[in-house]
Amino acid sequence: MTLTNTITELLAQFTHNNPHGQNRLVYNQAWLRNQQRLLDLGHQLGAQTTVDAVGNIYLDFLGRDQTRTIATGSHMDTVVNGGKYDGLYGILGGLCAIRRLITLKGPPPVTLRLIAFSEEEGSRFNAAFTGSTYLMTHQLPDYLIDATGTSFASARKIAIAQLGHHADQQVAYCTRPTTFTELHIEQGPRLKTAGKKIGLVQGIVAQQRLLITAHGVTNHAGTTPMNQRQDAVKLGSHLITSLYQLAAHHNDLILTVGKIKVVPNVTNAIAGTMQFSVDFRTPSNATMTVFNRQLTALLNKLTDVTIESTLKVPSTCLSKPMLTANIDLAQRLSLPYLQLFSGAGHDSQIISSSIPTAMIFVPSNHGYSHCPQEYTAPEDLVTGIKVLIASLHQQAYL
Amino acid sequence: MTLTNTITELLAQFTHNNPHGQNRLVYNQAWLRNQQRLLDLGHQLGAQTTVDAVGNIYLDFLGRDQTRTIATGSHMDTVVNGGKYDGLYGILGGLCAIRRLITLKGPPPVTLRLIAFSEEEGSRFNAAFTGSTYLMTHQLPDYLIDATGTSFASARKIAIAQLGHHADQQVAYCTRPTTFTELHIEQGPRLKTAGKKIGLVQGIVAQQRLLITAHGVTNHAGTTPMNQRQDAVKLGSHLITSLYQLAAHHNDLILTVGKIKVVPNVTNAIAGTMQFSVDFRTPSNATMTVFNRQLTALLNKLTDVTIESTLKVPSTCLSKPMLTANIDLAQRLSLPYLQLFSGAGHDSQIISSSIPTAMIFVPSNHGYSHCPQEYTAPEDLVTGIKVLIASLHQQAYL
Repeated sequence: MTLTNTITELLAQFTHNNPHGQNRLVYNQAWLRNQQRLLDLGHQLGAQTTVDAVGNIYLDFLGRDQTRTIATGSHMDTVVNGGKYDGLYGILGGLCAIRRLITLKGPPPVTLRLIAFSEEEGSRFNAAFTGSTYLMTHQLPDYLIDATGTSFASARKIAIAQLGHHADQQVAYCTRPTTFTELHIEQGPRLKTAGKKIGLVQGIVAQQRLLITAHGVTNHAGTTPMNQRQDAVKLGSHLITSLYQLAAHHNDLILTVGKIKVVPNVTNAIAGTMQFSVDFRTPSNATMTVFNRQLTALLNKLTDVTIESTLKVPSTCLSKPMLTANIDLAQRLSLPYLQLFSGAGHDSQIISSSIPTAMIFVPSNHGYSHCPQEYTAPEDLVTGIKVLIASLHQQAYL
Repeated sequence: MTLTNTITELLAQFTHNNPHGQNRLVYNQAWLRNQQRLLDLGHQLGAQTTVDAVGNIYLDFLGRDQTRTIATGSHMDTVVNGGKYDGLYGILGGLCAIRRLITLKGPPPVTLRLIAFSEEEGSRFNAAFTGSTYLMTHQLPDYLIDATGTSFASARKIAIAQLGHHADQQVAYCTRPTTFTELHIEQGPRLKTAGKKIGLVQGIVAQQRLLITAHGVTNHAGTTPMNQRQDAVKLGSHLITSLYQLAAHHNDLILTVGKIKVVPNVTNAIAGTMQFSVDFRTPSNATMTVFNRQLTALLNKLTDVTIESTLKVPSTCLSKPMLTANIDLAQRLSLPYLQLFSGAGHDSQIISSSIPTAMIFVPSNHGYSHCPQEYTAPEDLVTGIKVLIASLHQQAYL
């Protein structure tokens, strides 16, 4: 069976064709079905399987030498109405790579591990990366509550029980791997634009999120003279325009205002408040510092504005030796590649804090991501798996 | 009993002190209680009462000469969470004025009529002025449906039945009055700012409402390069700022963007669309024409914008002879007055299409309107009633 047939069939087994997309939020029924399916596959293939206390799944293809573990994988959850590839491709592509390698080269000299992290997107509870964070820190955010009032602790324990385990007995969490390689769709248009087949990730961008509120006084739109108004939409819109202008001075920074909430949000009432989100990212921590200084200078001029910081993460560098090795492999395979920073967050940025970590990207059609239109052609999926096979081979067999 | 005690007690009988405000939406229980209360008062005072097919109530204090009818009144409905004075003051103040006049001067030489229009605010069905429009045109918008799926026809017929009448038999709608005078709170801060006690209304401003949509392409906020984005929020915010700048060139025009809707409205997604309302008003039809030309020139430069017109009414002039007469009365009563255009719509603009019509405004504290904070001091309420008494006396007794 070809790699193309294998990855295509596996993706079909683990997804559906509902036009509204995939909704595998952590611990829900669709998530459970897929984690169970993966455990079953692991058993069939003779792997040692583990479910840890957060619901991460580990398939260990044990090596003669078990002191080293070469790991690959990604996350099982999706955003609401997500695509078929984000996360899942890294799990199923990793499984294809390990199977192919064992078929071709025999039992591994050291352990090969496939990881399916429970959660990365932050789409159910107000926290992201809870799967990889648990592996690295053993922290369980059991205090979190989802939109329906269900606690993280309760949803987690029920889900793990349904996977045939008792959450409180999963204290023997999985040991950390020696290295980690994550295969993932790019989620952007840069590989397609540059005509490249493979992205080799240098690091993950620094990211900040703010919630900015412009304050006004709500009143009748027809009877309040212009010079006696405090119009929150007028102030807020001007601020958004200023922020985009400020961002345009930095060619290595991207900025997005994606969410706006106006109160009372009525056609014939002057707005009392306009709140909006600001998300900005850059590979350069230096640019982040300069932009923050400029932003503060801009906002400090205004009295009727309040700012809440909701996210602040510095830029993360992945393993330079692994990146160099992967560049060498791509060249040997004659694959056109691009070195790039990831603009999206990934489990790899959590793992890389103390484990050598690499990421391999494949092209995303039109850069579509987090939507049902997400698509990567089968031949591009296979190219990514071939690079992963070469990398795992180099790390585990040579 | 003083006028102050009378108007204060009447307002107390027809309202409640719920901090969320008054919710007399047309044909609901609170609305029904008040229309019934008004009919009962009319019977007690010996008026001839009529309920027409739309639920307008008429109390006719018949004159010896019934060929002329001098009318006053306003609307019984409120906005959602409205104040105690908007509409209701014009009904109860009108009743005070007629009673006082009859007490002081005896039975009227011509008929004095109090009108309580069923609906003006447009807060239940997607249409305003349905009460005064029925009086002038006999149109019943029975096809309208409210937010719960109830039709205008059904709500109307049930309400009129509860007022003791059969809607289908109310074909003998009330005859049109000879003149109409509406007493109303200003709903803005101009009288207070100018230190005036009375506003004499020259007309109602021209008004337009647009729904403008900026179109973009939604995508991942972290992975889409700035030069490959079509960001609807970036475009929309810039447009709002430009519209406010354009409006600032006209000192007789007010403009409000009160409502914004972003899709998908997610922090880490570039917006696909940003839709916003624009409400602009001016006493001058010439200014309206110039502003529309400028607006069209601005929007025509942009390909990714669509515009829907949701309201367009020209400015309305009220009766000049009645205005002149009321100025004369205010001067004779030594009351500081202001001539002004109303920025809000009123039943008077419908009536004035073919009946000589006047409006008398009293000050609104802080200009608060359409909210529970709406307030006019009792002495200011009485000043308005005194001007109305003088006007009705002049029209009916001299």
